[in-house]
Amino acid sequence: MTYADSAGAARKPTLAVVGATGAVGTVMLGILSERKDVWGEIRLIASPRSAGKKLTVRGEQVEVVALSEEAFEGVDVAMFDVPDEVSAQWAPVAAAKGAVAVDNSGAFRMDPEVPLVVPEVNAHAARVRPRGIISNPNCTTLSMIVAMGALHAEFGLSELIVSSYQAVSGSGKEGVDTLREQIAAVAGTELGTHPGDVRRAVGGGLGPYPAPIAYNVVPFAGSLKDDGWTSEELKVRNESRKILGLPGLRVTATCVRVPVITTHSLTVHARFENEVTVAKAHEILSTAPGVVLCDNPAEGEFPTPADVVGTDPTWVGRVRRSMDDPNALELFVCGDNLRKGAALNTAQIAEVVAAELTGVS
Amino acid sequence: MTYADSAGAARKPTLAVVGATGAVGTVMLGILSERKDVWGEIRLIASPRSAGKKLTVRGEQVEVVALSEEAFEGVDVAMFDVPDEVSAQWAPVAAAKGAVAVDNSGAFRMDPEVPLVVPEVNAHAARVRPRGIISNPNCTTLSMIVAMGALHAEFGLSELIVSSYQAVSGSGKEGVDTLREQIAAVAGTELGTHPGDVRRAVGGGLGPYPAPIAYNVVPFAGSLKDDGWTSEELKVRNESRKILGLPGLRVTATCVRVPVITTHSLTVHARFENEVTVAKAHEILSTAPGVVLCDNPAEGEFPTPADVVGTDPTWVGRVRRSMDDPNALELFVCGDNLRKGAALNTAQIAEVVAAELTGVS
Repeated sequence: MTYADSAGAARKPTLAVVGATGAVGTVMLGILSERKDVWGEIRLIASPRSAGKKLTVRGEQVEVVALSEEAFEGVDVAMFDVPDEVSAQWAPVAAAKGAVAVDNSGAFRMDPEVPLVVPEVNAHAARVRPRGIISNPNCTTLSMIVAMGALHAEFGLSELIVSSYQAVSGSGKEGVDTLREQIAAVAGTELGTHPGDVRRAVGGGLGPYPAPIAYNVVPFAGSLKDDGWTSEELKVRNESRKILGLPGLRVTATCVRVPVITTHSLTVHARFENEVTVAKAHEILSTAPGVVLCDNPAEGEFPTPADVVGTDPTWVGRVRRSMDDPNALELFVCGDNLRKGAALNTAQIAEVVAAELTGVS
Repeated sequence: MTYADSAGAARKPTLAVVGATGAVGTVMLGILSERKDVWGEIRLIASPRSAGKKLTVRGEQVEVVALSEEAFEGVDVAMFDVPDEVSAQWAPVAAAKGAVAVDNSGAFRMDPEVPLVVPEVNAHAARVRPRGIISNPNCTTLSMIVAMGALHAEFGLSELIVSSYQAVSGSGKEGVDTLREQIAAVAGTELGTHPGDVRRAVGGGLGPYPAPIAYNVVPFAGSLKDDGWTSEELKVRNESRKILGLPGLRVTATCVRVPVITTHSLTVHARFENEVTVAKAHEILSTAPGVVLCDNPAEGEFPTPADVVGTDPTWVGRVRRSMDDPNALELFVCGDNLRKGAALNTAQIAEVVAAELTGVS
């Protein structure tokens, strides 16, 4: 199907950005301004209290309109970067108005009638969307899944054991503000060598965290679920399985927050059905779309959050073959949790839909 | 054998602390002042340039003497907290003078004629010391091995997959100073959201690290060895096997430095020969000597470095059974890398030897 108006001339689809004023929304407007422009109108939608604000996208000022059924009139693709409950209510409204909703909340990710898409891994899944909704994975899964998808295609993935080093911007502005305030409180002190002195220094200002995050790491992210697992750890398990189309994949995650502003890192123990070599893994990772191999530790080359932040790809380093298992690789992976981990992947999904609608591939 | 002078009266053994003026040595003098006093004379030994300094131990000023063969005259137990090459030269000298050398360097750890001892796990090994030398494990292994030893005794350990969150004091004073200086440089800024801005802010002052450590994590600790592994990762493997007496134990570690002053943390995926339950693991960990179970995430209770620093035990939380493997546990473990990870374990080994020498158990 080509996408043409009544006179037969190709037209560019209309995009709505719902949650345009939020943290991810702000990154989104920057990304939309940088990427190949496949969109006709870009409509900015937010809560009624933000209506009337003007934001810059593609170098132009655009006025924000209030979220309503009418706001989706004529929209082809609607991206949602809003809390779960807002998505749960409004993504179906957008779909009912004929838009394809691309949702970055957790509301629909495990719905069997909603595909969970990472374009480098399973772009094909975006075409089958019985509810008119496509979900974007959570940022921790997204920080490693492109690299895992590339290795899976070659070696056949059977198990992931993952530990995260998650940045505070994954908790939104409150997380970033909390770390910055705590860093200011501890800077210039001799704190950090006696029990509880960091906790005393930061006072009650723990923000969204159950313990201090400056000069500390916190082994808890998300909310508590059954058997001691956190919501974040279960997301890594369930979403990895769904994206890779491997419902029986063994996945274990332990999620830990670290005092980094932006960019999630993960250590990954990945076991495969077939024997692996570092040389072959290097070859795959150095050519896979969306992945940068950065693995020359003799020259101090490996990814770190401070070097990766603000970039689009998944960075992979410290690639080793397990000494006990010729089928297992160890890796260290970094990805910007606000870009590929949220806004960028949502934009990429929307572009996949745009290409389908316009018949351009 | 009882330990008696020529008149048959029991006497307390003489202890030498070699490297008394260093970072671990300083913690050691504090620990010796706090613990049950099993020692007669405590002699402080350091490099000639520190000779004549006075340091406080057990509430008394003691003058430091220069390292020499004569300095070991009459010494029963000599603890070494000095660089590898100094231990390699001088621990055999102390042993030749009749002292039992307890060495905290890497010089002798993998020597088959030198036991590697963690008293809660393998105190018995301290008795067989053909070279008169006993080694103390590295701090990363020590941060988790007491808990693993207790679980192994019940379930039979078969595999460890470990990721570390290592504190900068593991790199000595230079590591601590570097983190404090970098924290001062980034505090009060908006840094941390653009590629390389932390690297620019800290300038050339990376200290002992190959990348910034403030607002960052660095997936490299120690030196580069074969096949992309670091010395630190190989130590965790080789020392865990030796301490537990399991030469075939599967061990994989990825070691990552984090912006924490003191206390190493680790995520551990531990697989056992027998089926595990969280209830039984809790029972073991809550009664094992040297271990504190801190595992009630519903109440925000899990160990973090900021709360554990300055304490002696290994703290364990976030205990979960793998959803894919009834024989595997996931844990988060914290231990003060300067206390149990270095000075405390050395002091405990020395006390085991003192008990043997004096016939007190």
